[in-house]
Amino acid sequence: MPDDPGESSVIAAILRARPATRGVLVDVGDDAAVLAGGLVLTNDLLVEGVHFDERLTPADVGWKAVAVNVSDLGAMGARPSWAVLGLSLPRPLDMAWVTAFADGLGAALARWGLSLVGGDTTRSSGPVVVSLTVGGRAERAVTRSGGRAGDELWVTGTLGAAAAGFHRGAGDAAWLRRPEPPVAFGVAVAEAGLAHAMMDLSDGLATDLPRLAEASGVGALLDPEALPLDPSTSGAPDPVEEALSWGEDYQLLLAAPPSAGAPLRALAAETGVRLSRVGRLTAEAGCRLSRGSWPRPGFSHFEGSA
Amino acid sequence: MPDDPGESSVIAAILRARPATRGVLVDVGDDAAVLAGGLVLTNDLLVEGVHFDERLTPADVGWKAVAVNVSDLGAMGARPSWAVLGLSLPRPLDMAWVTAFADGLGAALARWGLSLVGGDTTRSSGPVVVSLTVGGRAERAVTRSGGRAGDELWVTGTLGAAAAGFHRGAGDAAWLRRPEPPVAFGVAVAEAGLAHAMMDLSDGLATDLPRLAEASGVGALLDPEALPLDPSTSGAPDPVEEALSWGEDYQLLLAAPPSAGAPLRALAAETGVRLSRVGRLTAEAGCRLSRGSWPRPGFSHFEGSA
Repeated sequence: MPDDPGESSVIAAILRARPATRGVLVDVGDDAAVLAGGLVLTNDLLVEGVHFDERLTPADVGWKAVAVNVSDLGAMGARPSWAVLGLSLPRPLDMAWVTAFADGLGAALARWGLSLVGGDTTRSSGPVVVSLTVGGRAERAVTRSGGRAGDELWVTGTLGAAAAGFHRGAGDAAWLRRPEPPVAFGVAVAEAGLAHAMMDLSDGLATDLPRLAEASGVGALLDPEALPLDPSTSGAPDPVEEALSWGEDYQLLLAAPPSAGAPLRALAAETGVRLSRVGRLTAEAGCRLSRGSWPRPGFSHFEGSA
Repeated sequence: MPDDPGESSVIAAILRARPATRGVLVDVGDDAAVLAGGLVLTNDLLVEGVHFDERLTPADVGWKAVAVNVSDLGAMGARPSWAVLGLSLPRPLDMAWVTAFADGLGAALARWGLSLVGGDTTRSSGPVVVSLTVGGRAERAVTRSGGRAGDELWVTGTLGAAAAGFHRGAGDAAWLRRPEPPVAFGVAVAEAGLAHAMMDLSDGLATDLPRLAEASGVGALLDPEALPLDPSTSGAPDPVEEALSWGEDYQLLLAAPPSAGAPLRALAAETGVRLSRVGRLTAEAGCRLSRGSWPRPGFSHFEGSA
């Protein structure tokens, strides 16, 4: 789902008034913060009516709150370890909702080996708001900003599964409801020192690739025919558009030197992760799609976005 | 403000479905969680219309989000270090609100030496929800559960200032709007090993003392005439009731052996903290007010609460 343009104004106002930070190795602006000593922190909010609706069961909401946060940690190469939950619920209290939510939350905590260690719960006159903070550790954190011209771009899994689930219920909307970010792969890539830059794909490659390129001070060239479109996007009017622009893929985007190609492929094979080389970083700024008929008329992404 | 009885059902449902935790020294149920290695974590939500209303400016809300969390850390004897913010805001976006909120947040972060290292912001169809997670470190964490029969009970500062501010705007409602929990004192007490048990007073002594006593497996005897009633409670129909029952004092309640009395007083004098001895822990279960005319008819607190 597209970002709300208001969010950047809010973030800018808060950062403007923020006192100087201390002991922060990777600050706001990456997938997660990294503190001196290796503690890695992230927070994601799920708001009813904004981030989820009736397409998701309460158990899906619980699962997803964990999944979107561990995705951020995996993208830094950090092993998630604990979670703290803030839960704001409308009244009268729907205990059936709460019980199902708790089941999904617990299943995802178990899936990624997290300890839920605290939190707060409160009533509200508004929609359900789930605020999950997740922490972990990284031996060697990988940021968005280390990409270099000449690096190859890699994407895990497939793109567009959540979009197809959202728009048409394709594939039972399984990835929309229960994403499985490749956290262990991200950790393994970081610990092996194979990537210059890494991030998770939460807003769609068309939005996220320019962020990585800009943070790295380079441009990017993307091969549209190399994109691992999820089969469920085949029913879309424009599968490439759907796979690039909607988001919630919770896959990893990596920038790695060509020499890392073979070990990356080996690591992916070992861990059962699909890995596709989709382009490269360029010295020239800006992100472009190029191959055959691309860029094609009417496909507006990337233009002016980097 | 009184707890919502629904909250305990929500917490119970979530804990029921929670997988086994690992590396957790102090779990849910204390002021904050303590992990192996000394990391201390807490989260508090502030919801518009539940935790604040027009009595608070947006800057007060920002201040208070930090204050209530560092109060929890101080009560464990932990030095707060970093914060992660989840902020859910109604639309259209009120940027004047956001800017003022950011100012108050920034002032409190600076006051307690915290680095704001990350977070998430989103729109919502409902009220403002502020979810702040704060972390820090404790060399020697002090829990609620270490109190022993014969321990003396101590309270920092005065009680009832926030209540008086809420009900009558007394004292310009300064403590309601901008509480200043004695975090450094809590850390010093813990590091000096002076207290068996400690907690912060967020729901009022009448609610919080039974929690400490119950967690410690003891009872308590409170001297109502020794309570440090805030002068602003003098306008209340029943100042003791106001000081004990409403909450938001963000002071510390300590249980310490009689031998710690002198060093505690010395530490309080050094750090400019008012410290009052208000009672003692007893082998007999239950919490009672006792002295002169107390317990008196019509004062229902403590009965059956432990």
